Amino acid sequence: MNHIHAPALLIDRNKCLRNIEQMAMKARQHQLIFRPHFKTHASAEIGNWFRDVGVEQITVSSVKMAVYFADHGWKDITIAIPVNLREISEINDLAGKIRLNLLAESPESIEFLKRNLTSPVGLFIELDSGYPRTGVKMDDHTQLEILLDTLKSDKIGFSGFLTHSGQTYSAGSKAEVLGIHDQVLGKIRALRNHFSSLNEEYIISAGDTPSCSLAEDFTGIDEIRPGNFVFYDIMQESIGSCTWDQIAVALACPVIARYPERGQIVVYGGSVHLSKEMILDAERRPVYGKVVKISDQGWEAPIPGAYVCSLSQEHGIISVPREILNIFNPGDILGILPVHSCLTAHSVKKYQTMEGRIISVINDE
Amino acid sequence: MNHIHAPALLIDRNKCLRNIEQMAMKARQHQLIFRPHFKTHASAEIGNWFRDVGVEQITVSSVKMAVYFADHGWKDITIAIPVNLREISEINDLAGKIRLNLLAESPESIEFLKRNLTSPVGLFIELDSGYPRTGVKMDDHTQLEILLDTLKSDKIGFSGFLTHSGQTYSAGSKAEVLGIHDQVLGKIRALRNHFSSLNEEYIISAGDTPSCSLAEDFTGIDEIRPGNFVFYDIMQESIGSCTWDQIAVALACPVIARYPERGQIVVYGGSVHLSKEMILDAERRPVYGKVVKISDQGWEAPIPGAYVCSLSQEHGIISVPREILNIFNPGDILGILPVHSCLTAHSVKKYQTMEGRIISVINDE
Repeated sequence: MNHIHAPALLIDRNKCLRNIEQMAMKARQHQLIFRPHFKTHASAEIGNWFRDVGVEQITVSSVKMAVYFADHGWKDITIAIPVNLREISEINDLAGKIRLNLLAESPESIEFLKRNLTSPVGLFIELDSGYPRTGVKMDDHTQLEILLDTLKSDKIGFSGFLTHSGQTYSAGSKAEVLGIHDQVLGKIRALRNHFSSLNEEYIISAGDTPSCSLAEDFTGIDEIRPGNFVFYDIMQESIGSCTWDQIAVALACPVIARYPERGQIVVYGGSVHLSKEMILDAERRPVYGKVVKISDQGWEAPIPGAYVCSLSQEHGIISVPREILNIFNPGDILGILPVHSCLTAHSVKKYQTMEGRIISVINDE
Repeated sequence: MNHIHAPALLIDRNKCLRNIEQMAMKARQHQLIFRPHFKTHASAEIGNWFRDVGVEQITVSSVKMAVYFADHGWKDITIAIPVNLREISEINDLAGKIRLNLLAESPESIEFLKRNLTSPVGLFIELDSGYPRTGVKMDDHTQLEILLDTLKSDKIGFSGFLTHSGQTYSAGSKAEVLGIHDQVLGKIRALRNHFSSLNEEYIISAGDTPSCSLAEDFTGIDEIRPGNFVFYDIMQESIGSCTWDQIAVALACPVIARYPERGQIVVYGGSVHLSKEMILDAERRPVYGKVVKISDQGWEAPIPGAYVCSLSQEHGIISVPREILNIFNPGDILGILPVHSCLTAHSVKKYQTMEGRIISVINDE
């Protein structure tokens, strides 16, 4: 760890590759299209690790990210956020080069696309399957029929229905995730029944990381789009979607101060690295990360009782059991497993392999 | 606003200049050294706006930021975080070029500096004045004497005592901020009395944004280091440190969806732009930002009752009073005043002036 001077987001490539391989295998077993969400890693190099298991179709969360991955050779991309009409010019550029899928959930947006698209795109209608962020309520068949009627155009191919069951992120157990997933499967069944006479071919795309990690029944789903699973994090571990040894990123932080009387140490590494995402522990205390010992080989399970209890911009305050307070001294490095790896990756904006090589991400400048 | 296609952090230069001028004037009136914290804006260009009011000394929160501003001509920099021993090589480089002040709060760190510094630095002893993040408790005079004894070295000049009263950020009113500030002034008085026989010259450096904005008594303080005031934000407004018309940044976001039945609209603009920082409103609901109408001239006061109630990575969910739901349509732009401007600026990593010009920040790659 001698080459680490300041906070660095370490990536354990072997863990990533295992996570990718496992999810790809699950998709194959269930005959699902595997269209992983690349917003988590946002890196062309990590994207290439997915090619090795046969992935050719991907999901992103912005036009900018679609342009980035198209520039890196990806030819089939879904932008999984309701279409941003102000980026129509960038969308037209992209649609002229690759197979592009957009999302819409209102007649206004679809009418705008019909008037302004210059190249054909695939269009998913976004469904709200119980996570009220975006999308038409899954059982609002009247509204869905209006949208299906509206989208008829030579520039728009109907790709299908897409949903993100983000409500699984609030689940407290595997059973709860599976319960939510079963409800979604029920809604999908009803949708398929309602549209059974539809002449066009279409697919149903779903797949949050908790459901994709835990479920074994994907009846009615054609495509999954999990993203977070490539790294996982302590939020996923707390839900039950992964085990500690699957978490593939850790923020390496230098210890800068130690307060035995408070049972705390302070590291250089704060909210500009970890974000302010937190979970509550069993005592309802906020936890902003868990602590691991790091060696050149990687890291092991979190130290029991040690956790990031507070963050300011560059400081991380870590609560440490008194009996092990002395193993960390100013100048030492410790590791923090992030609460939300997607936001941590976005904040740090580069990865460092265990061998010290930098892996870059989408350039946000 | 035609040139805005995707989330952009708008900066109202005139508001910034007024905020800077007001704080500089306050420092002059109270004969305080004004050493603003540049972590909030992290931009060489915005840094130059401070030169116009006579600022020559600055504060930063990392060695990397010190290097960046030194490269942009700043010759007197305090790195206001306990020294990171792993960056000793970068520190030595910097200390050979500029007047550099470091912070320490343990004999181990000071001993390390004595052994490893190759150029002279100024050293502040960090004090905990009631915000238990880093620093020696202000009334622990025994420990302070040990540190003062330890730091005697030809490479270390004693700069003084430095504290950050971050506890004012949890205050709910001006009166509460001033009460905390008075407590800190009392502790400073006791410290000065205790060390009245100290032969060396030293200063006392303090100055969080709430105290600097509201207090009129700075007895015993020689230097202030506020940072956030350059932009302010809704957290500061809720504390009472500023008024709406002083908030100098707003995230411009395209509307992507509208849900009249939920009383919500959704924008492209999420936690990767605003961070997950939040405050609770009077009904204890989390608020991640307030909503303003934006024109080419700027923005006005927030729309009553409209606020960001939830964030995911790229989506912002906005609760809007029913009677004005219809003024926002997909493709429109609205503005979000951030809860914490420092984190928003760090996340977006560039500013856009009202004229559409980009102002860049420290390059994190």
